[in-house]
Amino acid sequence: MTNRKIALIGAGSIAWGATLIRDLSDTQDLKGSTVVLMDVNQERLSLMYRLAKRYVQEVKSDIRVEHTSDRREAIRDADFVINTAMHGGHQYYEKMRSISEEYGYYRGINSVEWNMVSDYHTIWGYHQFKLALEIARDVEDWAPNAWLLQVANPVFELTTLIGRETKAKVIGLCSEAYSYKSVAKMLGLEGEVQAKMIGVNHDAWLVEFKHGGEDAYPLLDDWISKNYQRHVESYFQRSREEPLNVYLSPVAFDMYRNYGLFPVGDVVRSGTWKYHWDFGTKRRWYGEYGGFDSELGWMEYLRRHEEVTNLLVRAVDSQSPLSPLLRGGGGGEKDVVVPVIDSIANDKGEVHTVNVLNLGALQGVGDDVAVEIPAKVDAKGVHRGSYSLPKRVLNLAIRPRVQRMEVALEAFLEGGRQPLFDWLISDPRTDSVRQVEGVIDALLSIPENSELAKHFR
Amino acid sequence: MTNRKIALIGAGSIAWGATLIRDLSDTQDLKGSTVVLMDVNQERLSLMYRLAKRYVQEVKSDIRVEHTSDRREAIRDADFVINTAMHGGHQYYEKMRSISEEYGYYRGINSVEWNMVSDYHTIWGYHQFKLALEIARDVEDWAPNAWLLQVANPVFELTTLIGRETKAKVIGLCSEAYSYKSVAKMLGLEGEVQAKMIGVNHDAWLVEFKHGGEDAYPLLDDWISKNYQRHVESYFQRSREEPLNVYLSPVAFDMYRNYGLFPVGDVVRSGTWKYHWDFGTKRRWYGEYGGFDSELGWMEYLRRHEEVTNLLVRAVDSQSPLSPLLRGGGGGEKDVVVPVIDSIANDKGEVHTVNVLNLGALQGVGDDVAVEIPAKVDAKGVHRGSYSLPKRVLNLAIRPRVQRMEVALEAFLEGGRQPLFDWLISDPRTDSVRQVEGVIDALLSIPENSELAKHFR
Repeated sequence: MTNRKIALIGAGSIAWGATLIRDLSDTQDLKGSTVVLMDVNQERLSLMYRLAKRYVQEVKSDIRVEHTSDRREAIRDADFVINTAMHGGHQYYEKMRSISEEYGYYRGINSVEWNMVSDYHTIWGYHQFKLALEIARDVEDWAPNAWLLQVANPVFELTTLIGRETKAKVIGLCSEAYSYKSVAKMLGLEGEVQAKMIGVNHDAWLVEFKHGGEDAYPLLDDWISKNYQRHVESYFQRSREEPLNVYLSPVAFDMYRNYGLFPVGDVVRSGTWKYHWDFGTKRRWYGEYGGFDSELGWMEYLRRHEEVTNLLVRAVDSQSPLSPLLRGGGGGEKDVVVPVIDSIANDKGEVHTVNVLNLGALQGVGDDVAVEIPAKVDAKGVHRGSYSLPKRVLNLAIRPRVQRMEVALEAFLEGGRQPLFDWLISDPRTDSVRQVEGVIDALLSIPENSELAKHFR
Repeated sequence: MTNRKIALIGAGSIAWGATLIRDLSDTQDLKGSTVVLMDVNQERLSLMYRLAKRYVQEVKSDIRVEHTSDRREAIRDADFVINTAMHGGHQYYEKMRSISEEYGYYRGINSVEWNMVSDYHTIWGYHQFKLALEIARDVEDWAPNAWLLQVANPVFELTTLIGRETKAKVIGLCSEAYSYKSVAKMLGLEGEVQAKMIGVNHDAWLVEFKHGGEDAYPLLDDWISKNYQRHVESYFQRSREEPLNVYLSPVAFDMYRNYGLFPVGDVVRSGTWKYHWDFGTKRRWYGEYGGFDSELGWMEYLRRHEEVTNLLVRAVDSQSPLSPLLRGGGGGEKDVVVPVIDSIANDKGEVHTVNVLNLGALQGVGDDVAVEIPAKVDAKGVHRGSYSLPKRVLNLAIRPRVQRMEVALEAFLEGGRQPLFDWLISDPRTDSVRQVEGVIDALLSIPENSELAKHFR
């Protein structure tokens, strides 16, 4: 089925928008669809619109592109609403991070065990949570049959929040879903590799790993016993050129040894404080830059992200073709979003890794918690299977992360100072009540947080 | 119905055994019952036996008393098995506490947020967990129809463990169930007071508080606004004479203000690090001795406990009557255990505060977690109702405690070093990985822990 209306909320994020347009253009069964680009930033929206129009023309794809700064207009009667919107931008969170650090909270009060990823804003994500919930409410009101694809982080918290608080048909999506491929590549596996990653977003584990129908974990173990030492050496050598490629860092292997499953996707960037105490610790585990989420690594990520964006922005008004730009980097491999849209819109029943309320699918996790699972996706939506995790992973890696989500949602939904206080009082970076009170006061007193100051009073 | 067989495992705990014998003697509908005292310590067992025999004679109660050091003999065909057994005794845990403190873990690695109670041994409770599980297995094998009343701490962990791992019909019981009475007394309420406390053991909250059928919370608020200042002054004045009576300490009122329900029972001894950083902090919140669980308060508790025991021991071989001794102190008010036995044995259907697997009773808590709830108890067992807690209490006070239980059970059931490591790496008293490794090594290297050293390897 074609002629779908797809709304992209937060289309001013040029790099992500470009990927969407590229993937849609590449998807035969979605031709005839209309993409409505929406952003509150008119300038960026207009840039993205011109880029999309040019690309669609260039590759002669049958995708209509529209744009609006009216969110409801974008959402009205849409079949799919993709939310990539980030409130406040990176600078806002960097400011809060830097205030936190003045009070002894390295990488910010938001960075905690199993959530060290720098742009995964939970306890201080008030504006981001509010925005995502408003968008979901608009979907309820203006496109009740639409699928809401939650791409903006924190996917775990926001998918859970929207699933609990609204009737919107929400699916959280994250590109980490494909990250098992790097493990297969490391082992030199050719041909079909089957992989199932299960957990919650950014805390997912390789539960099934098969090559040619056979369990590939023994191959991994064998590879480790033979090659690990050499691998680590070359990892550290490469870490200066590839500071963001931490997925096969010593942390991944340490987690595998300690929890019994190989970690896949962004969980490798997190774990406990063991890997994160300070820059020196991060450097020993992740290499030269201290990994993706150290002060250096994160700045490098933001710099690279801006570089890609600037390249695209300049390309829009140049004469050179866009295709080479959009097909570079990842080899033009599709992001997870368009394949999921395709599988729903065309009732394909493909298996994708999605984030949805658990509803009994994953043992040991509450029904109303968004889990990340491989599931069949068709016109009726996500067909959950039955999943389980080893106790070790469940108890030591998943449950602590779920608890953090609950406190972040409590803070957002119920307000008051206590959730912030209790978040911090048990933090290993905390030495005193005064430190806790101090950092809360300092964070709430910046002008950007005047609404938070009332909410958390 | 009478002629019940009641097995008391851990009968060498004289003070507790004496209370049981007293309460049974006072319960008309349990006359004709046989109590089988069991302990591995022959000397204490024999003392307890003589004490029980003398008391039963003295008050002419129709209770038969037997004793054995064979646990299975005690349990075989029992109707009720009461487990009060504590492995290793206080000294063993004090030794681990003192080793912990050498590594910077004030009050021991076992003392953590929402579990600061000094004899509530979770992460280092290996032997205690093992013993309780063995007793439950004996009940499965030798008295499959018996009710297993779990009185030995940690009631929360052990009731959950036994409920999950065995078929024994387990009910956890804790005397904190009656502690709402001190609130009623403080307010000067006369006549019938209805109270419901809900949560998990040692983390339970006054969900319903009625006087003469009307909500008594407004009376409490009114009392606080008028009398709190004076109350605090007199609390601190009394704290030197009553160091263990912390239930109406400033902590209770601070918790009420911050979480929205009045804390009842031993939760007042816990909460977050806010009240527990160091002795000075404990002293500011709990008074002169720093409360029940400071280094001073806890020694005072152990001293008083020993004093009571010694008094009883001396009384056994004296000519003076035992009744005044057993009816002193708490005014002879019954402990919760015998009334629960009475309600089951005689199908009375009374409402008691019990700990049982949740099975959907308390919203927001997993089915297989032991909750503390008021429920009708009769010959068929515990009839769970439907309960809920305000989100604030659930998310900030109950969930973190449940998470600790899960890690403690993981440590016990699955072993390996990682549960201990992960328990400590996120502890606010932790400053480095070296500190974590150091304290684990030190604890596992004492002779008493040779079995643990293997288990946690």
